[in-house]
Amino acid sequence: MDQNFLFDPSILADLDYSSWKSSFRPGVSPHNPPHGLKVRPLCATDYDKGFLGVLAQLTKVGTVTREQFMARFNAMKDDKSYYVCVIEDLNKREVIGAATLVIEQKFIHSCGMRARVEDVVVDDTYRGKQLGKILTVVLIMLSKHLGCYKISLECTDQKLPFYQQVGFKQDGTNYMVLRWEQNDV
Amino acid sequence: MDQNFLFDPSILADLDYSSWKSSFRPGVSPHNPPHGLKVRPLCATDYDKGFLGVLAQLTKVGTVTREQFMARFNAMKDDKSYYVCVIEDLNKREVIGAATLVIEQKFIHSCGMRARVEDVVVDDTYRGKQLGKILTVVLIMLSKHLGCYKISLECTDQKLPFYQQVGFKQDGTNYMVLRWEQNDV
Repeated sequence: MDQNFLFDPSILADLDYSSWKSSFRPGVSPHNPPHGLKVRPLCATDYDKGFLGVLAQLTKVGTVTREQFMARFNAMKDDKSYYVCVIEDLNKREVIGAATLVIEQKFIHSCGMRARVEDVVVDDTYRGKQLGKILTVVLIMLSKHLGCYKISLECTDQKLPFYQQVGFKQDGTNYMVLRWEQNDV
Repeated sequence: MDQNFLFDPSILADLDYSSWKSSFRPGVSPHNPPHGLKVRPLCATDYDKGFLGVLAQLTKVGTVTREQFMARFNAMKDDKSYYVCVIEDLNKREVIGAATLVIEQKFIHSCGMRARVEDVVVDDTYRGKQLGKILTVVLIMLSKHLGCYKISLECTDQKLPFYQQVGFKQDGTNYMVLRWEQNDV
């Protein structure tokens, strides 16, 4: 059955996680997540598999109609800078985790590219299965595969040890934000 | 004379800076920068006007051929998510400042969009003319005009007061990075 993936699934299938072996429990890796789970690119059909519900465990999602979802999905697919990865529980046919890699094109660093980790979330009832680590390591190796010169993220104090564990460092750079509340639905 | 702009210059021309009047010296605004200077979108011809040289005052640029520059310029233009703004010294016909707004599409926040400030730089010899503030305020108002729910940036401790002055806040979020040094030219 042909599926409408956000990006070519063979990109994920070809990533090499051998250097991460000791980071996961025996037998577990992004290619071999815990039983019954699968890591894959976001699909158009994930609107019906609870993708937005999982995101709502992270932050405000608001009302998103199927048409709005598809418009955004297609815009991201055309753009080719968005790598939304999900974990599906194959038995339940539900999305139970998600994480996005976004690529930014630059003139600096010899017209290089940087990557960002965005919107990492795992369903509450699936915690403790290393799924957050699986998603993060997928994005890290994806950023390397795509030739980015760096990958960055923003996180709370609570998440610092988790991201340090997979190689992220604080380098003295501060994060600042200005919110346009009228649009902050 | 037709110029090849990265984005429609009328977007900048139509921004309303009236609420920022007290932030600038009398008579100065993004529409009225100091004498002989002009704020405008990046142009294809800025390769010959020192754009990359100004960026090199910020970070590593490396060797960028005209072909590489044009390929990246055209990719950014097609993408429609990149708003590189520059300040030109009209007498010298040189780019003496630059700042980039990048838009990221989301599923969260009702399929919203967030904006990021990237690669803000003003030529050393033009410091003290409020040009950094002019560029930053342009990007802030551009993010509002485009309907983003927030605009964020990363900066050193030294720059915190500058960005606080124009409305950015630290919210307890940490910035973390992992560098792929082999590509960090």
